[in-house]
Amino acid sequence: MTKVEIDRVAFLRDMHDVSAFGATAEGGLNREAASADDGRARDWLRARCVAEGMPVTVDGVGNMYAMLDIASPDAPCVLGGSHLDSQPNGGRFDGALGIVSALHAVLAVKRGCENGALRPQQNIGLVNWTNEEGSRFAPSIMGSAVFTGALPAPTALAARDRNGVPLEDALRAIGYLGRDPAPRNIASYVELHIEQGVVLETSGSTIGVVEGNWGAIKYTVEFRGVAAHTGPTPMPQRRDALLPAAELILFTRQLSDETGGALLSSVGRLDVAPNSTNIVAERVRVFAELRDVERDRLAAACRALEAKIQELGRGDVSATIEKPTDRAPALFDQKLRDCIEAAAADRGLASRRLHTVAGHDAVAVGRILPAGMIFVPSINGVSHHPAESTSEPDQLNGVQVLADVLARLVEDASPEMKRK
Amino acid sequence: MTKVEIDRVAFLRDMHDVSAFGATAEGGLNREAASADDGRARDWLRARCVAEGMPVTVDGVGNMYAMLDIASPDAPCVLGGSHLDSQPNGGRFDGALGIVSALHAVLAVKRGCENGALRPQQNIGLVNWTNEEGSRFAPSIMGSAVFTGALPAPTALAARDRNGVPLEDALRAIGYLGRDPAPRNIASYVELHIEQGVVLETSGSTIGVVEGNWGAIKYTVEFRGVAAHTGPTPMPQRRDALLPAAELILFTRQLSDETGGALLSSVGRLDVAPNSTNIVAERVRVFAELRDVERDRLAAACRALEAKIQELGRGDVSATIEKPTDRAPALFDQKLRDCIEAAAADRGLASRRLHTVAGHDAVAVGRILPAGMIFVPSINGVSHHPAESTSEPDQLNGVQVLADVLARLVEDASPEMKRK
Repeated sequence: MTKVEIDRVAFLRDMHDVSAFGATAEGGLNREAASADDGRARDWLRARCVAEGMPVTVDGVGNMYAMLDIASPDAPCVLGGSHLDSQPNGGRFDGALGIVSALHAVLAVKRGCENGALRPQQNIGLVNWTNEEGSRFAPSIMGSAVFTGALPAPTALAARDRNGVPLEDALRAIGYLGRDPAPRNIASYVELHIEQGVVLETSGSTIGVVEGNWGAIKYTVEFRGVAAHTGPTPMPQRRDALLPAAELILFTRQLSDETGGALLSSVGRLDVAPNSTNIVAERVRVFAELRDVERDRLAAACRALEAKIQELGRGDVSATIEKPTDRAPALFDQKLRDCIEAAAADRGLASRRLHTVAGHDAVAVGRILPAGMIFVPSINGVSHHPAESTSEPDQLNGVQVLADVLARLVEDASPEMKRK
Repeated sequence: MTKVEIDRVAFLRDMHDVSAFGATAEGGLNREAASADDGRARDWLRARCVAEGMPVTVDGVGNMYAMLDIASPDAPCVLGGSHLDSQPNGGRFDGALGIVSALHAVLAVKRGCENGALRPQQNIGLVNWTNEEGSRFAPSIMGSAVFTGALPAPTALAARDRNGVPLEDALRAIGYLGRDPAPRNIASYVELHIEQGVVLETSGSTIGVVEGNWGAIKYTVEFRGVAAHTGPTPMPQRRDALLPAAELILFTRQLSDETGGALLSSVGRLDVAPNSTNIVAERVRVFAELRDVERDRLAAACRALEAKIQELGRGDVSATIEKPTDRAPALFDQKLRDCIEAAAADRGLASRRLHTVAGHDAVAVGRILPAGMIFVPSINGVSHHPAESTSEPDQLNGVQVLADVLARLVEDASPEMKRK
């Protein structure tokens, strides 16, 4: 039963330090991808890794890798990681907890190797994926999707924020438009993340063993009408793009209501142009999403939504549909799930299997590699909000289990841990 | 029958020149109030006035006055004018045509005095009102409302744009935060404007004699929910501010439908926060408006809308209402209406009486002074759009009638033209 010990004081200090970059008055974070504050947080991470003897490379979409050769240079590699970017008014734990946990898990493994407690068969490293949140540049889960080949790098780099700035320029401005290749020989990826729900809290569990992910389909629907003065223009002449948008918002909610709330649905963003009080809306983009763990129910809701959009676009306002995210429900690697569960049990921690509703970098990476996810409890399930929090004991238990999992993986020489 | 002659070539050249400031690729204008391009258009107007011997003063909210003493210094004054600011993607004629028309009407009167054709009893001048459009700084019709005392100057100066910039700073940045007093002794105000509708075009009329204005009530409704992740948050826990906003948009339209389109209604602007695809909307501001020429029908619709907002704010999302504009239906000065009608007839031009649905600076000024409005046809009624246009003959006929009206007013010594 391999165990390594994390440095609890240093971990909490690093969590404190990283929370300063983009800190808001409400106690949360505003650290959108490739912003100046994201750049400062990245600089901090690089300095921490270099100080621990881990050189940092940066790939063409800004993903940062800090690798440590603890086995032979050509050995496969275990990777931990998450993301440093946040929502515009997000919390301190979403992503950042996973990064700091990965750093301290790697350092615990490093010490385990140095003091002879571990006999590594694989190397180890950590990654900070670019733009997991997707609030500034769409789509979300971007850097890891480029890593897996699901998203072409040029498409990612061309994504523009609300001011028309492409990701490429934003990364260059903060010094993280890299040219290094992504590391090869990655054999497995493990990510610790806050649950962003109440399953662990209500069941009294400390460690979440993530079994798989819900399906998520995201739509960008653009309605096009004609701008006109809201004063003199007679009502029959108005081609108001906001009216079908409002109908779509209510219909999206209705799709969830019809399943008793089992299917999750939302419209979180609406871009109205020109968005002037006395101009009939010419162009409205509606960002709608549907999520479900049941594949068939999700597919049925998607068909209903697409039919509704077509119907709304048949009047004097046209409609176009894009589907930037189309994520099927899937399971994480069985062996990694078992490994996480065993590590929790060996520390005497109550664990619980559950699914992730939200998308994560581990979900993207799991498409091509064995991947695993550890959840820690979110107080009251609050997330994407300054009040988002996880208690210090829960943070420490989570990073300890992650360290134990990574320790077991680096000792593993079995051939099935190779790239899918 | 007093007539003066405008300089048609110079007028068209000035219309061409002023259209360069904030010109867009689509042939329209992006010249929002107190923007850099608004500053350049103002500089141009000042230079034109000074070149014609008219010194320019600027009051505390940036209204520009160019006055000409053609009678005695203490005589009452006839004022023409409009506004140089535009919508973010507006047309070249809304406001600017009124400014250039006023300039050339004043110059025609000046020449009439110089060549002895006129015997002025009153002085003359023109005004460029700050921020008529209200797209960057709310409310609209701002500078003229401060002039009349309806809006306190500090309130206007404290209005902020989307980036949080107060009007005061924006005016200072372009050099138009003035300290001059507004001119006293204004006896009457006349404004030429594009119709922004199809009444003149469909009736084959060249000159619109504006009888009065529709009532217009504008609401700013803020719904407040709670931000949460659109993924894991269970539906019953979501307090989504976008749902009541969507209902209000559809209800606002329904109020018009119930009158067969007689009452005009719209929601042109919606501010969603944080407006991120995967965050439940925490705060949505809906900018709704109702317009009607019939006072009682308008009041009934307002009551229904306010009741609906209260109902929507009773659930798990709260609602607050502001009413930044509450404009009652009103009539313009009878004597000025007759004067415009007679001037059109004397030029052999077909005129038609009509109401303005939109608000204008002349509506604000008409609350305290005799005011009049001349409309010229809008091609296809298009307005607040780059395709907004008025034919050159219609422009020239309009400015000629304005010049004749101002000429008659400066010769008028009757006591009833004094301040209301």
